[in-house]
Amino acid sequence: MDDDILREKLATSTRILAMQGVLGLFGHVSIFDRDTQRVFISPGFGSDKATTGARDVLVCDLAGKIVDGKGRLPIEWPIHTTLHGARADAVSIAHLHSPYATLYAIAKREFRPVTLQGTLFADGVPLYTQPQLIKEIPQGNRLVELIGSKRGALLRGHGVVVIGKSIEETVYASLILEDDSRKAMQAAALGELNTFDPDECREFGASDSLERRAERAWGYLQKVEARWDRQPGTGQGFLA
Amino acid sequence: MDDDILREKLATSTRILAMQGVLGLFGHVSIFDRDTQRVFISPGFGSDKATTGARDVLVCDLAGKIVDGKGRLPIEWPIHTTLHGARADAVSIAHLHSPYATLYAIAKREFRPVTLQGTLFADGVPLYTQPQLIKEIPQGNRLVELIGSKRGALLRGHGVVVIGKSIEETVYASLILEDDSRKAMQAAALGELNTFDPDECREFGASDSLERRAERAWGYLQKVEARWDRQPGTGQGFLA
Amino acid sequence: MDDDILREKLATSTRILAMQGVLGLFGHVSIFDRDTQRVFISPGFGSDKATTGARDVLVCDLAGKIVDGKGRLPIEWPIHTTLHGARADAVSIAHLHSPYATLYAIAKREFRPVTLQGTLFADGVPLYTQPQLIKEIPQGNRLVELIGSKRGALLRGHGVVVIGKSIEETVYASLILEDDSRKAMQAAALGELNTFDPDECREFGASDSLERRAERAWGYLQKVEARWDRQPGTGQGFLA
Amino acid sequence: MDDDILREKLATSTRILAMQGVLGLFGHVSIFDRDTQRVFISPGFGSDKATTGARDVLVCDLAGKIVDGKGRLPIEWPIHTTLHGARADAVSIAHLHSPYATLYAIAKREFRPVTLQGTLFADGVPLYTQPQLIKEIPQGNRLVELIGSKRGALLRGHGVVVIGKSIEETVYASLILEDDSRKAMQAAALGELNTFDPDECREFGASDSLERRAERAWGYLQKVEARWDRQPGTGQGFLA
Repeated sequence: MDDDILREKLATSTRILAMQGVLGLFGHVSIFDRDTQRVFISPGFGSDKATTGARDVLVCDLAGKIVDGKGRLPIEWPIHTTLHGARADAVSIAHLHSPYATLYAIAKREFRPVTLQGTLFADGVPLYTQPQLIKEIPQGNRLVELIGSKRGALLRGHGVVVIGKSIEETVYASLILEDDSRKAMQAAALGELNTFDPDECREFGASDSLERRAERAWGYLQKVEARWDRQPGTGQGFLA
Repeated sequence: MDDDILREKLATSTRILAMQGVLGLFGHVSIFDRDTQRVFISPGFGSDKATTGARDVLVCDLAGKIVDGKGRLPIEWPIHTTLHGARADAVSIAHLHSPYATLYAIAKREFRPVTLQGTLFADGVPLYTQPQLIKEIPQGNRLVELIGSKRGALLRGHGVVVIGKSIEETVYASLILEDDSRKAMQAAALGELNTFDPDECREFGASDSLERRAERAWGYLQKVEARWDRQPGTGQGFLA
Repeated sequence: MDDDILREKLATSTRILAMQGVLGLFGHVSIFDRDTQRVFISPGFGSDKATTGARDVLVCDLAGKIVDGKGRLPIEWPIHTTLHGARADAVSIAHLHSPYATLYAIAKREFRPVTLQGTLFADGVPLYTQPQLIKEIPQGNRLVELIGSKRGALLRGHGVVVIGKSIEETVYASLILEDDSRKAMQAAALGELNTFDPDECREFGASDSLERRAERAWGYLQKVEARWDRQPGTGQGFLA
Repeated sequence: MDDDILREKLATSTRILAMQGVLGLFGHVSIFDRDTQRVFISPGFGSDKATTGARDVLVCDLAGKIVDGKGRLPIEWPIHTTLHGARADAVSIAHLHSPYATLYAIAKREFRPVTLQGTLFADGVPLYTQPQLIKEIPQGNRLVELIGSKRGALLRGHGVVVIGKSIEETVYASLILEDDSRKAMQAAALGELNTFDPDECREFGASDSLERRAERAWGYLQKVEARWDRQPGTGQGFLA
């Protein structure tokens, strides 16, 4: 993909995640251009994510040096660079402060999917327990090790990291994780949760159809975002 | 009813359910024209339900073959065709991913109504436990058998199915089920739930006045939907 | 007050309560003109409460006979007529399906105030347990007896009734009851509730300053309602 | 800072807190001009906070006498004057009825931070237990004593008080407290809360970077507020 398309897609994903209420003040998203080893990343703390455009995208190398764009990198840029560098399938990475998924980074309870779509996270979402932001490369490396081949991680009292083979996949998986977490939290008021065990997850095969699903969800979200009125609280629907 | 009216009603019901936040990305609604054995169905995954118009409605036969309209049937079309074919009173069917009703498809707790209007579901809402989408006719047949003469079913970790004698009834019953479920979930934080037992349900007679109530609710929802600004999060009122 | 003012005030209160999400499809509000023994009442089930105007107000006598205005009385008109007739201080009455206050009509837990403003309901809110709408005068009489000199009642699995010496008081007390109930429900997730005991309630003296507070809240709500965009989900702030 | 800037900043902070749903009908914010011993304060109960402008700001002395501006002081003005007078670092004070933070003033559970940003409140938030508004200077003095060197207090069944070295700090800390409280309440449904202990709080060093963070958050919130449509329920995003 050429740079302009990458910038546009990254800006769109930022506005979509802002619309859905999972990005807000602190989060950021990235796409890795493996050929040139450059990371395209959305602006961090302080920028208005709901109005992010291609012009706001920053480009850095794997050492966190800005090679294109004006402004500061998000302080937690090592989340992106270390994961992009370490995993061939980590093309796009979101760091979110999703209100519901983050609850698993607060309550003493391991994430297990409770929705069919949530079985995408069949292998679980490990918890990064160190009570610090990930501002240094060694911290990023510890996160890489913790995640292994999984789809993401929970950051204690802080937020989540979601990994995808494309920006569409990352956006879709991020919203699925949020929806599953919200439903788990709310259903827990009614009774014990009926989670999906690994066999059931495998049988459902959420990963098999992920590319197709993610693209269709992207098409839907793009249409909705285009007509969003950009108020802080009006875009927070779920995938329901 | 002629085809144009069916298409308009189906599109309106789709927008109403989208407005109320129970349809979103995945759900779909259908009306059966028994005379011609055709199923009118709203578009599935990927379309923007809040802007659905008569032009977007698809028409298929009971075998899932499109006979009119452009696009793909929702992947779970057998939910509609098998129920329409099997039950004379199943004129309209909604498959929803309602955020609150779905909680009963996650928590280990049987649905029992806690609101007077919810006694419409006096016979309960059985749970379809197989962790798969309903993409094949045999799965639809299993759903038909599970539901029997009841008003709907819960799909484990997935969503709900609601059946009505008219589109007005289906929309009304869907929203009542959602409202009852939300109140149950929230009241559970305050104490044990005081559910309505079968005798109390019968005495209240929710089914007797259903047609009249559903029509008046439709009139109300139609008016509100017509002035809805179509933002993802601004239409989510309940019947409160 | 002359009839036109009564009609305007009733319409305004209806839109305010709709804006705050406590009225919706089913609720209604009334003002009693004691001199002429007429009840001014907002339209019921099926009308769009967010757009109610003075022209939509109905006037009936204490026997439920319409003496002015076009349309049907709300089916539960005896809630209003019996209370207006029985209590000299019941000048204005709201029947609401408030989402949070109604939780006390579902959970097995007695209402006790948890907020300073909620001490207005120091004497409690008794529960009408019969699982029926209040469509007949004898049912209304039972409600009158149940309430005694209290400020309102909970209707099992259904909603609430709130009584005031003026429409301003009824609106204010209705929103306070809702806010107190919401906070109780949510705080219960964090730990045991610290309710206010009768002595503490008396000391705070919520009733003493009620008239003044209700008028100022009315002024505030009137201003906010006037600039409300009338979307179903955009007006649901609390008194926070 | 000159008076006009103080007025503008105070009005902006009022609109920001109203947008985020933590101010509403009852709350107020102040800035202290130590040189002239004057308190700039936003209007109280009854004014429409979402439209507050510099013209609405009142100025009083530490005895609660208005020295500039038209209108009434908020009835709880002693919260501001006693704290401003007693603590050199109390430059700006917010009294809020934040829906989630107030839950700790209702449930029998002490506040302990569960989010990294929430470690700002590492020293806890003490509870003012007297069930009365703070309308007199002696009550304010008791509050001063209770708070000591902490960042704020909970007022039983009522609301919160937050103190900052600048208006930016007070706004930021207020929203962090609200976000932490909301997440605690919701996570409690999933399991036991994993709070941060004093050592972890110290290590994270939330206070060290507070000035910089507060300024950037202010920049963000100011931009969002400027494009807010001023509906009661559309601004209620969190810092997510």
